[in-house]
Order: sequence, then C-alpha cells, then structure tokens
Amino acid sequence: MSESTERDVRHKARMQRKKALIDEKIAQAQDEYGLLLVHSGNGKGKSSSAFGMVARTLGHGLKVGVVQFIKGAASTGEETFFRRFPEEVSYHVMGEGFTWETQDRQRDIAKAQEAWAVAQRLLSDDSVGLVVLDELNIALKHGYLELDAVLADIEARPLLQHVVVTGRGALPGMIEAADTVTEMSLVKHAFKSGVKAQKGIEF
Amino acid sequence: MSESTERDVRHKARMQRKKALIDEKIAQAQDEYGLLLVHSGNGKGKSSSAFGMVARTLGHGLKVGVVQFIKGAASTGEETFFRRFPEEVSYHVMGEGFTWETQDRQRDIAKAQEAWAVAQRLLSDDSVGLVVLDELNIALKHGYLELDAVLADIEARPLLQHVVVTGRGALPGMIEAADTVTEMSLVKHAFKSGVKAQKGIEF
Repeated sequence: MSESTERDVRHKARMQRKKALIDEKIAQAQDEYGLLLVHSGNGKGKSSSAFGMVARTLGHGLKVGVVQFIKGAASTGEETFFRRFPEEVSYHVMGEGFTWETQDRQRDIAKAQEAWAVAQRLLSDDSVGLVVLDELNIALKHGYLELDAVLADIEARPLLQHVVVTGRGALPGMIEAADTVTEMSLVKHAFKSGVKAQKGIEF
Repeated sequence: MSESTERDVRHKARMQRKKALIDEKIAQAQDEYGLLLVHSGNGKGKSSSAFGMVARTLGHGLKVGVVQFIKGAASTGEETFFRRFPEEVSYHVMGEGFTWETQDRQRDIAKAQEAWAVAQRLLSDDSVGLVVLDELNIALKHGYLELDAVLADIEARPLLQHVVVTGRGALPGMIEAADTVTEMSLVKHAFKSGVKAQKGIEF
C-alpha cells in the first residue's frame, strides 16, 4: 500500500470514528436529565444567578432546596423573600457560620458536615427540582468537606434534579464533574470608585 | 535647588494630591445611591442574576419593574413566578419580539421605543427600588434605541433606584456609564457535550 493510500485509509477510519461519536452525542442529547452547574469566579452574580434559577424553577411548579454553607454570604433579602414560600422552598442556613476569626477548625468541620447532612436529604428527595449549594466551593476549598464524598452524593441524586454550586475557587474536581461552569468576572466595580455596599445590591 | 531636592518636592506634591483624592473618595463612599449594573458576556447567568436581585429587592420590601426587550430571551419560569406578585413586580415583555426573521427594521424600532416608554415610566417612579432592563444591550447594539437618550433617562432616575441592564455586547458607552460591570464567561457548557436545553435551566 502506498503511503498516500495508507493515509487515506487512516483518514477514513478516523472520520468513521468521528461520525460514530457525533451520532452518539446526538442520541445522548435527546436525554433530558438534571444538570450540575457551577458558578465560580471573583465577580458578582454567582449566588444571585442561582437565586434567579430558584425563581425560574418555582415558576415551573417545582420545589427547591437551598443550603447556604456560609452564613451571611448570600443576601438577607433573598433569604427573606424565599422564606415566604415554605411549602415550595426548603431554606437552610448553616449554623453560625465558619469561625474565620476564632480559627476553631474542628467546629467548622462539624458545622459543614451538619449542613451537608441537610444537603444529602435534599439530594435524595425526587420532589425537589433544584438544589442550591451556596458557597459550597468555599467549604470544599478549606477541606471542611471531602470532595469525593460530596460528588458521590451529587451524582447519586434523582435523575431530573438540577444542582447549582456557587463560590469562588471551585476545585478542579468540581469543574470536571460539572455540566456547565460559568465564570463571573469583575470588569468594573462601584466599590473601587468609592461607593459603599448597597442594600439590594450587595446584601 | 538640586535635582534630588526638586524630585522630593514633586514627589511630596504628588502624594498630597493623591491623599486629597483618597479623602474625597472616602467621603463619596458615605453617599448611598442607586447603582447602574451591567451584566454582559457570552456566559450564562446575565438575566438569572438580575432575577436573583429582583428576589433580593422584594425581600427588602421594595417594588421592582422588569422590562424584557426580547420576548422569549428570558426564562418563562421567571416570568410565571414573578407575575404572581402584581402588586410588587411590574412585569413587561416587549410586544411580539424583534423580527429577526422578517427583517422589518422599522417595526423593530417602533417596538423597542414602545418598550422604552414603559421603562421611562418605571425610571421616573421613586416607589420602584429596582428596574431590570433585560436584553437592552441587544436593542442598543442593533441601533433600535439611541444610547445617549437611554443613558439620559437612566441618569435622571430617582436617586436611590438601582438599574440592571443585561445582554451580551454592551456598548462602550454603557460600560462607561455603569457603576458595576460583570462579565459572565462560559467555561464549560453541557450543550457542547450533547445535552439539550433543560426546563428550569435554559428557559
């Protein structure tokens, strides 16, 4: 076989593999299933966007679970609002928050694990259409929870349930596991031009 | 005066100007006023994040106005949900959307101007704490509305009112006028791995 014929044969085989792969992807695309979304980056909107999805999910008539892994990290306004709908939104804020100040690591780990137990309950309830794990990335980055165990619980969730994980510094394993990753980057910030935190915007 | 003394004098003058500038910025930071936020970029979360802010604002007991400049661009779920609160949320979706297909530019301009008239009403109502101008950037990019006129109305709004403008391709003048600009970038997308649009996530 001449060199160029051999190349043609290899090319054809490669194209056939490629076609098979594309066909498989098209077939997969027909499957509707719950997605794992990650909102990371240093910009604003990571949690807000998750709460927009809460509204969207409620609009579709599905229930929502929210676990906030850092107390006070998300807006008190959003919490106040969504707590209006206790039948539709199961809203949980982790105990007293992490002890950044007191540096009591064992207590932080215990609190994070309590919060995860709540998350596990939501992740095994197929009446819940969306689970928001707000600032989970921070708890993972500090090693308060084990990534493998967390991902195993997320992967074992009901087939149609969506999960949104927020927080800067998403671990590579979380990004790897995600279906969609959005990076929120700060282009320009009012704080930098000297405006203080605004109710309804920052908290 | 020796060369190095002269340099010291210039340095001191520069530092004094710098200190005056910093003091001024600190004084300005005490002022609380409504911000103009722009959510742009090709990633997800531009509108979701605005709707998260709607929830936050409602949680603070303030009213909200929403004008969607492209029909069907934002989630039907969010619309369904926030229409539950007609006393608190004034929700408007532009007529029949733009005629991307029919290419009737005059009709598009007329529709965009109708929508802007609604926005003007919200932007002059000081009982409204937040105005969401969803996909306004698209209408501006196509020249359906004039940027200068739009910015003049936004700047003339009540002092404490926040405005969020969404849509990819924000014009430089919009970015210039904004207090905060967040760029949502796509890092990884489920569609690219062959998953079709999901209710509650994409619409």
